[in-house]
Amino acid sequence: MELRHSIELLGVAAFAASGVLSAGRKGMDLIGVAAIAFVAALGGGTIRDLLLDRHPIGWIASPDFLWVCLSATVVTLAWVRVRQPPHRALQTADALGLALFVIGGTGIAEQAGQRGLVAMLMGVITGAAGGVLRDVLSAEIPMVLRPGRLYVTAAIAGASLYLALEAIGMPRRPASVAGMIVIALLRFAAMRWDVRLPPPGLPAGDLDPDM
Amino acid sequence: MELRHSIELLGVAAFAASGVLSAGRKGMDLIGVAAIAFVAALGGGTIRDLLLDRHPIGWIASPDFLWVCLSATVVTLAWVRVRQPPHRALQTADALGLALFVIGGTGIAEQAGQRGLVAMLMGVITGAAGGVLRDVLSAEIPMVLRPGRLYVTAAIAGASLYLALEAIGMPRRPASVAGMIVIALLRFAAMRWDVRLPPPGLPAGDLDPDM
Amino acid sequence: MELRHSIELLGVAAFAASGVLSAGRKGMDLIGVAAIAFVAALGGGTIRDLLLDRHPIGWIASPDFLWVCLSATVVTLAWVRVRQPPHRALQTADALGLALFVIGGTGIAEQAGQRGLVAMLMGVITGAAGGVLRDVLSAEIPMVLRPGRLYVTAAIAGASLYLALEAIGMPRRPASVAGMIVIALLRFAAMRWDVRLPPPGLPAGDLDPDM
Repeated sequence: MELRHSIELLGVAAFAASGVLSAGRKGMDLIGVAAIAFVAALGGGTIRDLLLDRHPIGWIASPDFLWVCLSATVVTLAWVRVRQPPHRALQTADALGLALFVIGGTGIAEQAGQRGLVAMLMGVITGAAGGVLRDVLSAEIPMVLRPGRLYVTAAIAGASLYLALEAIGMPRRPASVAGMIVIALLRFAAMRWDVRLPPPGLPAGDLDPDM
Repeated sequence: MELRHSIELLGVAAFAASGVLSAGRKGMDLIGVAAIAFVAALGGGTIRDLLLDRHPIGWIASPDFLWVCLSATVVTLAWVRVRQPPHRALQTADALGLALFVIGGTGIAEQAGQRGLVAMLMGVITGAAGGVLRDVLSAEIPMVLRPGRLYVTAAIAGASLYLALEAIGMPRRPASVAGMIVIALLRFAAMRWDVRLPPPGLPAGDLDPDM
Repeated sequence: MELRHSIELLGVAAFAASGVLSAGRKGMDLIGVAAIAFVAALGGGTIRDLLLDRHPIGWIASPDFLWVCLSATVVTLAWVRVRQPPHRALQTADALGLALFVIGGTGIAEQAGQRGLVAMLMGVITGAAGGVLRDVLSAEIPMVLRPGRLYVTAAIAGASLYLALEAIGMPRRPASVAGMIVIALLRFAAMRWDVRLPPPGLPAGDLDPDM
């Protein structure tokens, strides 16, 4: 319980730092950068809680999420004024944050009575929706949906493994750890060796089904 | 009841297929395309349910929505690898999906005790918000808000007619059918003859009321 | 109570008019412009109510918000056909609308039992999220997050002052007025003298913490 909350706070810090860095080239002011960091770190859990009607939502119930987010933003902004951003460390933190958010979100959906595909989707939303909102606020196609990231793919794979292991009788704790390891490993593989899904093979022309 | 649920599932399939096709030129990976399809097919109903505080929201209460969405995505992706996308069929399906989503969403708002403008807006949101979210995730101005689509216009006209006919005493079923026919006909007219609203007549300069 | 509701309606009208004008250069149709106006005027309060689980949300409980929004949209569209948009008047209305929305939203969060950082954030969201959604629908980086606006900054400063004055014992009404004055003055200062925050000092290169 205590350990879990601590690790969640670490995930929030990692996502906030990555939000600050990705806002660097957008021409926002200081407060705009902080807003992006908040959305990146807390957006996924917020959408999950709204969809599950789980109130008060995470950061309203535990405002320490907000303070950790704010602290990580300030530290990141101070850090980049004196030295290079620690990319390797951030990538690792982001991968661990994703692993924890996805499995944690899946577990919260199970507590709320969800199973199977819905529980899996809640885990994926918890881990990936913050990054989607961050990029939408930057008027960009979400990075997590683009080739070569295996971001949502890793989330789906880890949440599915966790749910499958539980379904065949494995206790929650080792199943959680297995799911998290798969997520982190897939992300590391995507970053090191440029592993990617096959292209969707859609025609690139100006399709417009609305017309 | 059964018929209605079946038609709703057909609407979900049509919107998912149209989401897949519109994601074709965005440079997303396979999972990114699937995410766009989910958002296009289920986003409108999700926003309506959140606004009306209607829980569990549609696809959590009935996960068959998710399976239909997934199946339509896979079939569309497989289809476009072997032959041209069936544009005429998709346009028809999209128009029917819109007709059903708008009138269905208006009816759900009435069940939740809403009347008049609020009920009409809920219908429009059910039918059009999925397409808006789809385009926002692609960093584009939503197609449904652009000239020559009559998309939101058709939704407003159909929902208003349905509510007006009910208000003057027509039973729900024929009023629903009349509303749906108007929506589908307006969409077909927009596609065939390029019917469009007058331009808003706003100055095109760099207005910036924030400054 | 009555006065407050009247001022809120004025804020809605100002934000709707500013939404119409900012949609001018986007190539949307008439209904698209109206949709942007609704989102700009009602989006912030809607997100606040969803986050606080406050139902029915504002414009469902009081549909006069919708009618005011619609009227302001029609009047603005008619106005710009015969004469220049009244920029000075609109800027003033937008600044007053922001002042009222932020302090009003903070007060609503307090009524819902929130304090400190959460209450402040709810005020900021009430005032600024509508403008964020408006720009997201136009596929642009939100103006309120860009340098030289002091938009979110003014909201934070006013809400914080209001909460601080209350915390040291000042009654709600004068504390509200002080918070609103600070917001309006900061916005006027940003518009007249181009006051701005220091740049975030982030490296402008192609940082990509997702990779």
